Amino acid sequence: MTTTPIISRTQRELRGQLAEWRGSGDRIAFVPTMGALHEGHLSLVRLARKKAERVIVSIFVNPTQFAPGEDLEAYPRTEAADSEKLAAEGVDLIYIPLPNSMYNAHHATAIKVGGVATGLETDHRPTFFDGVALVVTKLFNRVQPDVAIFGEKDYQQLATIRRLVEDLDMPIHIIGAPIARDEYGLALSSRNQYFNAQSLAKARQLNTIMFDCAESMERGANVDRAAEDAAQALLDAGFSGVDYVQVRSKNSLTVLEGGVLNKPARLLIAAHCDGVRLIDNCAVNVKK
Amino acid sequence: MTTTPIISRTQRELRGQLAEWRGSGDRIAFVPTMGALHEGHLSLVRLARKKAERVIVSIFVNPTQFAPGEDLEAYPRTEAADSEKLAAEGVDLIYIPLPNSMYNAHHATAIKVGGVATGLETDHRPTFFDGVALVVTKLFNRVQPDVAIFGEKDYQQLATIRRLVEDLDMPIHIIGAPIARDEYGLALSSRNQYFNAQSLAKARQLNTIMFDCAESMERGANVDRAAEDAAQALLDAGFSGVDYVQVRSKNSLTVLEGGVLNKPARLLIAAHCDGVRLIDNCAVNVKK
Repeated sequence: MTTTPIISRTQRELRGQLAEWRGSGDRIAFVPTMGALHEGHLSLVRLARKKAERVIVSIFVNPTQFAPGEDLEAYPRTEAADSEKLAAEGVDLIYIPLPNSMYNAHHATAIKVGGVATGLETDHRPTFFDGVALVVTKLFNRVQPDVAIFGEKDYQQLATIRRLVEDLDMPIHIIGAPIARDEYGLALSSRNQYFNAQSLAKARQLNTIMFDCAESMERGANVDRAAEDAAQALLDAGFSGVDYVQVRSKNSLTVLEGGVLNKPARLLIAAHCDGVRLIDNCAVNVKK
Repeated sequence: MTTTPIISRTQRELRGQLAEWRGSGDRIAFVPTMGALHEGHLSLVRLARKKAERVIVSIFVNPTQFAPGEDLEAYPRTEAADSEKLAAEGVDLIYIPLPNSMYNAHHATAIKVGGVATGLETDHRPTFFDGVALVVTKLFNRVQPDVAIFGEKDYQQLATIRRLVEDLDMPIHIIGAPIARDEYGLALSSRNQYFNAQSLAKARQLNTIMFDCAESMERGANVDRAAEDAAQALLDAGFSGVDYVQVRSKNSLTVLEGGVLNKPARLLIAAHCDGVRLIDNCAVNVKK
Protein backbone atom coordinates (compact mmCIF):
# COMPACT_ATOMS: atom_id res chain seq x y z
CA MET A 1 0.00 0.00 0.00
CA THR A 2 2.96 2.32 -0.54
CA THR A 3 1.79 5.77 -1.58
CA THR A 4 3.72 9.00 -1.78
CA PRO A 5 2.60 11.07 1.16
CA ILE A 6 2.13 14.78 0.73
CA ILE A 7 4.80 16.62 2.68
CA SER A 8 3.58 19.93 4.11
CA ARG A 9 5.98 22.33 5.75
CA THR A 10 3.75 25.38 6.06
CA GLN A 11 0.38 25.96 7.65
CA ARG A 12 -0.91 27.28 4.35
CA GLU A 13 -0.13 24.00 2.56
CA LEU A 14 -1.55 22.00 5.43
CA ARG A 15 -4.75 24.04 5.62
CA GLY A 16 -5.36 23.75 1.91
CA GLN A 17 -5.11 19.98 1.99
CA LEU A 18 -7.20 19.69 5.15
CA ALA A 19 -9.98 21.79 3.62
CA GLU A 20 -10.08 19.50 0.59
CA TRP A 21 -10.35 16.34 2.68
CA ARG A 22 -12.89 17.84 5.07
CA GLY A 23 -14.91 18.97 2.09
CA SER A 24 -15.07 15.33 0.95
CA GLY A 25 -16.25 14.28 4.41
CA ASP A 26 -13.01 12.46 5.23
CA ARG A 27 -12.21 11.97 8.89
CA ILE A 28 -8.63 12.66 9.97
CA ALA A 29 -6.45 10.64 12.34
CA PHE A 30 -3.30 12.26 13.63
CA VAL A 31 -0.08 10.82 15.02
CA PRO A 32 2.27 13.50 16.39
CA THR A 33 5.92 12.36 16.56
CA MET A 34 9.42 13.71 17.02
CA GLY A 35 10.64 11.59 14.09
CA ALA A 36 13.35 8.91 14.46
CA LEU A 37 10.53 6.52 13.71
CA HIS A 38 10.60 2.89 14.77
CA GLU A 39 8.10 0.05 14.85
CA GLY A 40 6.44 1.60 17.91
CA HIS A 41 5.50 4.69 15.93
CA LEU A 42 4.43 2.58 12.98
CA SER A 43 2.07 0.61 15.21
CA LEU A 44 0.42 3.94 16.07
CA VAL A 45 0.16 4.76 12.38
CA ARG A 46 -1.48 1.39 11.65
CA LEU A 47 -4.01 2.05 14.40
CA ALA A 48 -4.64 5.51 12.95
CA ARG A 49 -5.29 3.93 9.53
CA LYS A 50 -8.18 1.97 11.04
CA LYS A 51 -9.76 5.03 12.62
CA ALA A 52 -10.12 7.50 9.74
CA GLU A 53 -9.98 7.96 6.00
CA ARG A 54 -6.89 10.17 6.22
CA VAL A 55 -3.78 9.79 8.34
CA ILE A 56 -1.49 12.71 9.13
CA VAL A 57 1.83 12.23 10.92
CA SER A 58 3.75 15.23 12.20
CA ILE A 59 7.50 15.27 12.73
CA PHE A 60 8.74 18.00 15.03
CA VAL A 61 11.50 17.80 17.64
CA ASN A 62 9.85 20.13 20.14
CA PRO A 63 12.43 22.23 21.99
CA THR A 64 10.02 23.24 24.78
CA GLN A 65 9.84 19.71 26.15
CA PHE A 66 13.60 19.36 26.50
CA ALA A 67 15.25 20.82 29.60
CA PRO A 68 18.72 22.41 29.44
CA GLY A 69 21.25 19.57 29.48
CA GLU A 70 18.88 17.07 27.88
CA ASP A 71 19.53 15.64 24.41
CA LEU A 72 17.73 18.21 22.22
CA GLU A 73 20.74 18.69 19.93
CA ALA A 74 21.68 15.01 19.87
CA TYR A 75 18.11 13.76 19.38
CA PRO A 76 18.16 11.69 16.17
CA ARG A 77 16.84 13.43 13.03
CA THR A 78 16.17 10.97 10.22
CA GLU A 79 13.65 12.68 7.98
CA ALA A 80 14.34 10.77 4.76
CA ALA A 81 14.14 7.36 6.42
CA ASP A 82 11.07 8.46 8.37
CA SER A 83 9.30 9.54 5.19
CA GLU A 84 10.01 6.18 3.53
CA LYS A 85 8.59 4.29 6.49
CA LEU A 86 5.48 6.44 6.52
CA ALA A 87 5.03 6.03 2.76
CA ALA A 88 5.11 2.26 3.23
CA GLU A 89 2.29 2.59 5.78
CA GLY A 90 0.11 4.56 3.40
CA VAL A 91 0.24 7.80 5.38
CA ASP A 92 -1.55 10.58 3.49
CA LEU A 93 0.35 13.60 4.74
CA ILE A 94 3.53 14.26 6.69
CA TYR A 95 3.49 17.60 8.44
CA ILE A 96 6.98 18.90 9.17
CA PRO A 97 6.51 22.42 10.51
CA LEU A 98 9.40 24.80 10.01
CA PRO A 99 11.06 25.15 13.42
CA ASN A 100 10.76 28.94 13.51
CA SER A 101 7.04 28.75 12.66
CA MET A 102 6.18 27.12 15.96
CA TYR A 103 7.33 29.63 18.57
CA ASN A 104 7.70 33.24 17.53
CA ALA A 105 9.48 35.96 19.45
CA HIS A 106 6.23 37.28 20.94
CA HIS A 107 5.08 33.89 22.22
CA ALA A 108 3.79 34.36 25.78
CA THR A 109 1.29 31.57 26.47
CA ALA A 110 1.91 28.62 28.78
CA ILE A 111 -0.31 25.63 29.54
CA LYS A 112 0.03 23.75 32.79
CA VAL A 113 -1.71 20.47 33.54
CA GLY A 114 -1.83 19.41 37.18
CA GLY A 115 -3.28 16.20 38.63
CA VAL A 116 -2.08 13.36 36.41
CA ALA A 117 0.98 15.38 35.40
CA THR A 118 2.11 15.69 39.03
CA GLY A 119 5.02 13.57 40.25
CA LEU A 120 6.66 10.69 38.31
CA GLU A 121 8.19 12.33 35.19
CA THR A 122 7.52 15.82 36.56
CA ASP A 123 9.71 15.12 39.60
CA HIS A 124 12.63 14.61 37.22
CA ARG A 125 11.69 16.73 34.21
CA PRO A 126 9.76 19.61 35.79
CA THR A 127 8.82 21.44 32.58
CA PHE A 128 8.37 18.39 30.35
CA PHE A 129 4.58 18.21 30.36
CA ASP A 130 4.27 21.99 30.00
CA GLY A 131 6.22 21.63 26.77
CA VAL A 132 4.18 18.63 25.65
CA ALA A 133 0.83 20.28 26.46
CA LEU A 134 1.81 23.40 24.53
CA VAL A 135 3.06 21.67 21.39
CA VAL A 136 0.20 19.18 21.34
CA THR A 137 -2.35 21.99 21.67
CA LYS A 138 -0.69 23.90 18.85
CA LEU A 139 -0.48 20.85 16.59
CA PHE A 140 -4.09 19.92 17.36
CA ASN A 141 -5.23 23.42 16.45
CA ARG A 142 -3.24 23.30 13.22
CA VAL A 143 -4.28 19.80 12.15
CA GLN A 144 -7.77 19.71 13.74
CA PRO A 145 -7.94 15.93 13.71
CA ASP A 146 -10.97 13.87 14.65
CA VAL A 147 -8.78 11.30 16.35
CA ALA A 148 -5.22 11.40 17.71
CA ILE A 149 -3.09 8.41 18.69
CA PHE A 150 -0.51 8.34 21.48
CA GLY A 151 1.52 5.39 22.73
CA GLU A 152 1.07 3.92 26.20
CA LYS A 153 4.86 3.87 26.36
CA ASP A 154 4.59 7.46 27.59
CA TYR A 155 1.75 6.54 29.91
CA GLN A 156 1.76 9.67 32.04
CA GLN A 157 1.96 11.76 28.87
CA LEU A 158 -1.08 9.95 27.47
CA ALA A 159 -3.01 10.58 30.71
CA THR A 160 -1.91 14.22 30.67
CA ILE A 161 -3.09 14.69 27.10
CA ARG A 162 -6.44 13.06 27.89
CA ARG A 163 -6.82 15.51 30.80
CA LEU A 164 -5.78 18.48 28.64
CA VAL A 165 -8.22 17.59 25.87
CA GLU A 166 -11.10 17.09 28.28
CA ASP A 167 -10.34 20.23 30.30
CA LEU A 168 -10.06 22.48 27.25
CA ASP A 169 -13.02 20.84 25.46
CA MET A 170 -11.00 20.00 22.39
CA PRO A 171 -13.26 18.04 20.04
CA ILE A 172 -10.70 15.27 19.53
CA HIS A 173 -10.89 11.60 20.45
CA ILE A 174 -7.64 10.46 22.09
CA ILE A 175 -6.68 6.82 21.62
CA GLY A 176 -3.89 5.08 23.50
CA ALA A 177 -1.91 2.38 21.67
CA PRO A 178 -0.21 -0.58 23.39
CA ILE A 179 3.55 -0.49 23.92
CA ALA A 180 5.57 -2.04 21.10
CA ARG A 181 8.45 -4.16 22.40
CA ASP A 182 11.42 -5.91 20.82
CA GLU A 183 11.80 -9.69 21.01
CA TYR A 184 13.32 -9.33 24.48
CA GLY A 185 10.49 -7.15 25.74
CA LEU A 186 12.41 -3.86 25.65
CA ALA A 187 9.95 -1.04 24.94
CA LEU A 188 10.86 0.49 21.58
CA SER A 189 12.24 4.01 21.85
CA SER A 190 14.11 6.36 19.56
CA ARG A 191 16.71 6.63 22.29
CA ASN A 192 17.46 2.86 22.15
CA GLN A 193 19.69 3.60 19.18
CA TYR A 194 22.13 5.24 21.59
CA PHE A 195 22.96 1.73 22.97
CA ASN A 196 25.83 -0.61 22.04
CA ALA A 197 25.24 -4.37 22.28
CA GLN A 198 26.33 -4.63 25.91
CA SER A 199 24.14 -1.73 27.05
CA LEU A 200 21.24 -3.09 25.06
CA ALA A 201 21.46 -6.41 26.92
CA LYS A 202 21.36 -4.49 30.17
CA ALA A 203 18.43 -2.31 29.07
CA ARG A 204 16.44 -5.42 28.22
CA GLN A 205 16.37 -6.41 31.87
CA LEU A 206 14.18 -3.42 32.71
CA ASN A 207 10.99 -5.00 31.40
CA THR A 208 11.70 -8.36 33.01
CA ILE A 209 12.15 -6.71 36.40
CA MET A 210 9.01 -4.60 35.84
CA PHE A 211 6.79 -7.53 34.86
CA ASP A 212 8.10 -9.54 37.83
CA CYS A 213 7.27 -6.64 40.12
CA ALA A 214 3.75 -6.30 38.70
CA GLU A 215 3.20 -10.02 39.08
CA SER A 216 4.23 -9.99 42.72
CA MET A 217 1.83 -7.06 43.32
CA GLU A 218 -0.91 -9.04 41.60
CA ARG A 219 -0.15 -11.97 43.91
CA GLY A 220 -0.66 -9.70 46.94
CA ALA A 221 2.79 -8.38 47.78
CA ASN A 222 3.07 -5.13 49.71
CA VAL A 223 3.43 -2.54 46.94
CA ASP A 224 6.05 -0.40 48.64
CA ARG A 225 8.20 -3.45 49.34
CA ALA A 226 7.73 -4.77 45.80
CA ALA A 227 8.69 -1.39 44.32
CA GLU A 228 11.79 -1.18 46.51
CA ASP A 229 12.79 -4.69 45.46
CA ALA A 230 12.40 -3.77 41.79
CA ALA A 231 14.50 -0.63 42.21
CA GLN A 232 17.22 -2.69 43.91
CA ALA A 233 17.04 -5.30 41.15
CA LEU A 234 17.62 -2.56 38.57
CA LEU A 235 20.70 -1.31 40.42
CA ASP A 236 21.95 -4.90 40.77
CA ALA A 237 21.50 -5.33 37.01
CA GLY A 238 23.81 -2.38 36.41
CA PHE A 239 21.41 0.51 36.02
CA SER A 240 23.16 3.63 37.30
CA GLY A 241 20.09 5.19 38.88
CA VAL A 242 16.36 4.72 39.37
CA ASP A 243 14.19 7.83 39.09
CA TYR A 244 11.07 6.00 40.23
CA VAL A 245 9.31 2.66 40.54
CA GLN A 246 5.74 3.57 41.43
CA VAL A 247 2.30 2.07 41.26
CA ARG A 248 -0.52 4.51 40.54
CA SER A 249 -4.25 4.25 39.91
CA LYS A 250 -4.93 3.19 36.33
CA ASN A 251 -6.62 6.28 34.88
CA SER A 252 -6.18 9.31 37.12
CA LEU A 253 -2.66 8.22 38.19
CA THR A 254 -3.56 8.91 41.80
CA VAL A 255 -0.86 7.98 44.29
CA LEU A 256 -1.99 4.77 46.00
CA GLU A 257 -1.62 4.09 49.68
CA GLY A 258 0.88 1.39 50.50
CA GLY A 259 -0.19 -2.11 51.39
CA VAL A 260 -1.85 -4.59 49.06
CA LEU A 261 -3.55 -3.45 45.86
CA ASN A 262 -7.32 -3.92 45.64
CA LYS A 263 -8.01 -2.47 42.21
CA PRO A 264 -6.41 -2.38 38.77
CA ALA A 265 -3.38 -0.11 38.70
CA ARG A 266 -0.37 0.85 36.60
CA LEU A 267 3.26 0.27 37.45
CA LEU A 268 5.59 2.97 36.10
CA ILE A 269 9.37 2.95 36.02
CA ALA A 270 12.11 5.34 34.95
CA ALA A 271 15.76 4.35 35.25
CA HIS A 272 19.15 5.22 33.80
CA CYS A 273 21.08 2.69 31.74
CA ASP A 274 24.56 3.66 30.51
CA GLY A 275 23.68 7.32 30.06
CA VAL A 276 20.24 6.75 28.56
CA ARG A 277 17.08 7.39 30.54
CA LEU A 278 14.53 4.61 29.96
CA ILE A 279 10.86 4.62 30.90
CA ASP A 280 8.41 1.73 30.86
CA ASN A 281 5.09 0.78 32.40
CA CYS A 282 2.60 -2.05 32.57
CA ALA A 283 -0.82 -2.92 33.90
CA VAL A 284 -1.17 -4.44 37.35
CA ASN A 285 -4.31 -6.52 36.93
CA VAL A 286 -5.59 -6.86 40.44
CA LYS A 287 -9.18 -8.10 40.55
CA LYS A 288 -11.64 -5.68 42.15
CA MET B 1 -35.30 41.09 11.80
CA THR B 2 -36.55 39.52 15.03
CA THR B 3 -36.14 35.76 14.93
CA THR B 4 -36.40 33.24 17.68
CA PRO B 5 -32.85 32.17 18.47
CA ILE B 6 -32.17 28.55 19.27
CA ILE B 7 -31.20 28.24 22.92
CA SER B 8 -28.63 25.48 23.55
CA ARG B 9 -27.70 24.48 27.06
CA THR B 10 -25.73 21.31 26.32
CA GLN B 11 -22.76 20.57 24.13
CA ARG B 12 -24.77 17.88 22.37
CA GLU B 13 -27.43 20.38 21.26
CA LEU B 14 -24.77 22.88 20.28
CA ARG B 15 -22.73 20.36 18.30
CA GLY B 16 -25.78 19.12 16.41
CA GLN B 17 -26.70 22.61 15.28
CA LEU B 18 -23.10 23.52 14.43
CA ALA B 19 -22.74 20.41 12.27
CA GLU B 20 -25.86 21.34 10.32
CA TRP B 21 -24.69 24.89 9.65
CA ARG B 22 -21.15 23.83 8.78
CA GLY B 23 -22.58 21.23 6.43
CA SER B 24 -24.34 24.04 4.58
CA GLY B 25 -21.09 25.98 4.35
CA ASP B 26 -22.20 28.69 6.79
CA ARG B 27 -19.49 30.64 8.56
CA ILE B 28 -19.95 31.26 12.27
CA ALA B 29 -19.31 34.46 14.22
CA PHE B 30 -19.17 34.21 17.99
CA VAL B 31 -19.71 36.77 20.75
CA PRO B 32 -18.92 35.42 24.23
CA THR B 33 -20.61 37.37 27.03
CA MET B 34 -21.43 37.16 30.72
CA GLY B 35 -25.01 38.30 30.03
CA ALA B 36 -26.51 41.46 31.53
CA LEU B 37 -26.48 42.70 27.97
CA HIS B 38 -26.44 46.37 27.05
CA GLU B 39 -25.96 48.37 23.87
CA GLY B 40 -22.23 47.68 24.04
CA HIS B 41 -22.81 43.96 23.66
CA LEU B 42 -25.41 44.54 20.97
CA SER B 43 -22.89 46.57 18.96
CA LEU B 44 -20.63 43.48 19.03
CA VAL B 45 -23.53 41.34 17.85
CA ARG B 46 -24.26 43.72 14.97
CA LEU B 47 -20.61 43.54 13.94
CA ALA B 48 -20.78 39.73 14.15
CA ARG B 49 -23.84 39.76 11.87
CA LYS B 50 -21.74 41.39 9.15
CA LYS B 51 -18.95 38.83 9.43
CA ALA B 52 -20.71 35.49 9.03
CA GLU B 53 -23.91 33.74 8.06
CA ARG B 54 -24.55 32.56 11.62
CA VAL B 55 -24.15 34.41 14.90
CA ILE B 56 -23.77 32.61 18.21
CA VAL B 57 -23.76 34.47 21.53
CA SER B 58 -22.79 32.69 24.72
CA ILE B 59 -23.95 33.73 28.17
CA PHE B 60 -21.85 32.40 31.01
CA VAL B 61 -20.83 34.16 34.22
CA ASN B 62 -17.41 32.60 34.47
CA PRO B 63 -16.43 31.98 38.10
CA THR B 64 -12.72 31.50 37.30
CA GLN B 65 -12.27 35.14 36.33
CA PHE B 66 -13.69 36.47 39.61
CA ALA B 67 -11.38 36.66 42.61
CA PRO B 68 -12.66 35.99 46.14
CA GLY B 69 -14.39 39.17 47.34
CA GLU B 70 -15.35 40.28 43.83
CA ASP B 71 -18.97 40.47 42.70
CA LEU B 72 -19.50 36.93 41.32
CA GLU B 73 -22.69 36.36 43.31
CA ALA B 74 -24.01 39.89 42.81
CA TYR B 75 -23.17 40.00 39.09
CA PRO B 76 -26.46 40.72 37.30
CA ARG B 77 -28.22 37.71 35.71
CA THR B 78 -30.93 38.75 33.28
CA GLU B 79 -31.39 35.81 30.96
CA ALA B 80 -34.94 36.52 29.79
CA ALA B 81 -34.20 40.15 28.95
CA ASP B 82 -30.90 39.13 27.31
CA SER B 83 -32.65 36.59 25.10
CA GLU B 84 -35.18 39.17 23.93
CA LYS B 85 -32.45 41.63 23.01
CA LEU B 86 -30.55 38.95 21.10
CA ALA B 87 -33.71 37.86 19.30
CA ALA B 88 -34.23 41.46 18.17
CA GLU B 89 -30.71 41.42 16.69
CA GLY B 90 -31.36 38.25 14.71
CA VAL B 91 -28.94 36.08 16.66
CA ASP B 92 -29.14 32.47 15.49
CA LEU B 93 -28.18 30.66 18.65
CA ILE B 94 -27.70 31.51 22.31
CA TYR B 95 -25.38 29.11 24.08
CA ILE B 96 -25.97 29.05 27.83
CA PRO B 97 -23.76 26.24 29.15
CA LEU B 98 -24.91 24.60 32.35
CA PRO B 99 -22.58 25.92 35.08
CA ASN B 100 -21.49 22.46 36.22
CA SER B 101 -20.64 21.44 32.64
CA MET B 102 -17.78 23.91 32.41
CA TYR B 103 -15.41 22.85 35.20
CA ASN B 104 -15.63 19.29 36.47
CA ALA B 105 -14.11 17.95 39.65
CA HIS B 106 -11.09 16.54 37.81
CA HIS B 107 -10.26 19.79 36.03
CA ALA B 108 -6.50 20.35 36.26
CA THR B 109 -5.47 22.53 33.31
CA ALA B 110 -4.42 26.17 33.55
CA ILE B 111 -3.49 28.63 30.81
CA LYS B 112 -1.26 31.58 31.51
CA VAL B 113 -0.62 34.40 29.07
CA GLY B 114 2.34 36.66 29.80
CA GLY B 115 3.46 39.73 27.87
CA VAL B 116 0.34 41.77 27.13
CA ALA B 117 -1.39 40.30 30.18
CA THR B 118 1.33 41.60 32.50
CA GLY B 119 0.64 44.65 34.67
CA LEU B 120 -2.43 46.94 34.40
CA GLU B 121 -5.41 44.68 35.28
CA THR B 122 -3.12 41.87 36.43
CA ASP B 123 -1.61 44.13 39.10
CA HIS B 124 -5.06 44.42 40.65
CA ARG B 125 -6.77 41.19 39.58
CA PRO B 126 -3.86 38.72 39.48
CA THR B 127 -5.81 35.67 38.25
CA PHE B 128 -8.28 37.50 36.02
CA PHE B 129 -6.67 36.76 32.65
CA ASP B 130 -5.95 33.16 33.62
CA GLY B 131 -9.70 32.76 34.10
CA VAL B 132 -10.48 34.58 30.86
CA ALA B 133 -7.93 32.60 28.83
CA LEU B 134 -9.31 29.31 30.14
CA VAL B 135 -12.98 30.03 29.56
CA VAL B 136 -12.37 31.59 26.15
CA THR B 137 -10.31 28.58 25.06
CA LYS B 138 -13.04 26.23 26.24
CA LEU B 139 -15.81 28.20 24.55
CA PHE B 140 -13.78 28.47 21.34
CA ASN B 141 -13.26 24.71 21.32
CA ARG B 142 -16.97 24.11 21.91
CA VAL B 143 -18.26 26.64 19.38
CA GLN B 144 -15.39 26.47 16.86
CA PRO B 145 -16.23 29.83 15.32
CA ASP B 146 -14.57 31.32 12.25
CA VAL B 147 -14.65 34.77 13.80
CA ALA B 148 -15.00 36.02 17.39
CA ILE B 149 -15.77 39.56 18.48
CA PHE B 150 -14.50 41.25 21.65
CA GLY B 151 -14.98 44.84 22.76
CA GLU B 152 -12.11 47.31 23.01
CA LYS B 153 -13.65 48.33 26.35
CA ASP B 154 -11.60 45.46 27.82
CA TYR B 155 -8.58 46.47 25.80
CA GLN B 156 -5.99 44.41 27.67
CA GLN B 157 -8.33 41.43 27.52
CA LEU B 158 -8.65 41.84 23.75
CA ALA B 159 -4.85 42.00 23.41
CA THR B 160 -4.51 38.95 25.67
CA ILE B 161 -6.98 36.94 23.60
CA ARG B 162 -5.24 37.92 20.37
CA ARG B 163 -1.95 36.68 21.91
CA LEU B 164 -3.58 33.45 23.16
CA VAL B 165 -5.13 32.66 19.79
CA GLU B 166 -1.92 33.33 17.91
CA ASP B 167 0.26 31.41 20.39
CA LEU B 168 -1.99 28.33 20.41
CA ASP B 169 -2.65 28.48 16.65
CA MET B 170 -6.40 28.58 17.06
CA PRO B 171 -7.92 28.97 13.58
CA ILE B 172 -10.12 31.89 14.64
CA HIS B 173 -10.10 35.49 13.47
CA ILE B 174 -10.36 37.88 16.43
CA ILE B 175 -12.05 41.22 15.78
CA GLY B 176 -12.03 44.13 18.22
CA ALA B 177 -15.11 46.37 18.33
CA PRO B 178 -15.06 50.06 19.33
CA ILE B 179 -16.22 51.06 22.80
CA ALA B 180 -19.91 51.91 23.04
CA ARG B 181 -20.56 54.98 25.21
CA ASP B 182 -23.63 56.68 26.61
CA GLU B 183 -24.53 60.25 25.63
CA TYR B 184 -22.07 61.54 28.26
CA GLY B 185 -19.25 59.37 27.00
CA LEU B 186 -19.37 56.81 29.83
CA ALA B 187 -18.25 53.44 28.50
CA LEU B 188 -21.20 51.06 28.71
CA SER B 189 -20.74 48.30 31.27
CA SER B 190 -23.00 45.79 32.98
CA ARG B 191 -21.70 47.18 36.26
CA ASN B 192 -23.03 50.69 35.49
CA GLN B 193 -26.42 49.48 36.69
CA TYR B 194 -24.98 49.44 40.21
CA PHE B 195 -24.97 53.30 40.14
CA ASN B 196 -27.58 55.72 41.47
CA ALA B 197 -28.00 59.06 39.67
CA GLN B 198 -25.39 60.87 41.73
CA SER B 199 -22.75 58.17 41.28
CA LEU B 200 -23.54 57.98 37.58
CA ALA B 201 -22.81 61.70 37.21
CA LYS B 202 -19.48 61.13 38.92
CA ALA B 203 -18.66 58.09 36.79
CA ARG B 204 -19.27 60.10 33.64
CA GLN B 205 -16.30 62.30 34.45
CA LEU B 206 -13.91 59.41 33.91
CA ASN B 207 -14.02 59.58 30.12
CA THR B 208 -13.70 63.38 30.07
CA ILE B 209 -10.59 63.23 32.20
CA MET B 210 -9.23 60.38 30.05
CA PHE B 211 -9.78 62.13 26.72
CA ASP B 212 -8.27 65.34 28.12
CA CYS B 213 -5.23 63.36 29.23
CA ALA B 214 -4.86 61.69 25.81
CA GLU B 215 -5.16 65.06 24.11
CA SER B 216 -2.43 66.59 26.24
CA MET B 217 -0.18 63.61 25.43
CA GLU B 218 -0.96 64.12 21.76
CA ARG B 219 0.03 67.78 22.12
CA GLY B 220 3.40 66.73 23.52
CA ALA B 221 2.95 66.66 27.29
CA ASN B 222 5.27 64.49 29.37
CA VAL B 223 3.33 61.22 29.66
CA ASP B 224 4.18 60.55 33.30
CA ARG B 225 3.12 64.05 34.30
CA ALA B 226 -0.07 63.85 32.22
CA ALA B 227 -0.97 60.47 33.78
CA GLU B 228 -0.35 61.84 37.28
CA ASP B 229 -2.54 64.85 36.52
CA ALA B 230 -5.34 62.58 35.29
CA ALA B 231 -5.13 60.41 38.40
CA GLN B 232 -5.33 63.52 40.58
CA ALA B 233 -8.26 64.84 38.55
CA LEU B 234 -10.11 61.56 39.18
CA LEU B 235 -9.54 61.84 42.92
CA ASP B 236 -10.64 65.50 42.82
CA ALA B 237 -13.80 64.40 41.02
CA GLY B 238 -14.63 62.10 43.91
CA PHE B 239 -13.23 58.76 42.73
CA SER B 240 -12.17 56.84 45.82
CA GLY B 241 -9.09 55.27 44.25
CA VAL B 242 -7.15 55.00 41.01
CA ASP B 243 -5.71 51.59 40.15
CA TYR B 244 -3.78 52.91 37.16
CA VAL B 245 -3.54 55.59 34.53
CA GLN B 246 -1.01 54.27 32.05
CA VAL B 247 -0.01 54.75 28.47
CA ARG B 248 1.16 51.63 26.66
CA SER B 249 2.16 50.74 23.12
CA LYS B 250 -0.89 50.25 20.94
CA ASN B 251 -0.68 46.55 20.11
CA SER B 252 1.78 44.73 22.33
CA LEU B 253 0.93 46.91 25.36
CA THR B 254 4.61 47.41 26.03
CA VAL B 255 5.40 49.78 28.89
CA LEU B 256 6.61 53.02 27.31
CA GLU B 257 9.50 55.05 28.60
CA GLY B 258 8.48 58.37 30.08
CA GLY B 259 8.90 61.63 28.19
CA VAL B 260 7.01 62.62 25.05
CA LEU B 261 5.23 60.03 22.91
CA ASN B 262 6.57 59.50 19.42
CA LYS B 263 4.23 56.77 18.17
CA PRO B 264 0.55 55.82 18.44
CA ALA B 265 -0.29 54.46 21.87
CA ARG B 266 -3.18 53.52 24.14
CA LEU B 267 -4.16 55.22 27.36
CA LEU B 268 -5.72 52.84 29.91
CA ILE B 269 -7.44 53.73 33.18
CA ALA B 270 -8.99 51.83 36.07
CA ALA B 271 -10.55 53.70 38.98
CA HIS B 272 -13.08 53.18 41.74
CA CYS B 273 -16.30 55.17 41.83
CA ASP B 274 -18.66 54.67 44.78
CA GLY B 275 -17.82 50.99 45.19
CA VAL B 276 -17.74 50.16 41.48
CA ARG B 277 -14.50 49.56 39.63
CA LEU B 278 -14.54 51.24 36.21
CA ILE B 279 -12.13 50.73 33.34
CA ASP B 280 -11.79 52.72 30.16
CA ASN B 281 -9.23 53.36 27.44
CA CYS B 282 -8.67 55.38 24.32
CA ALA B 283 -6.23 55.84 21.48
CA VAL B 284 -3.43 58.37 21.76
CA ASN B 285 -2.92 59.37 18.15
CA VAL B 286 0.61 60.64 18.08
CA LYS B 287 1.95 60.91 14.55
CA LYS B 288 4.97 58.75 13.82
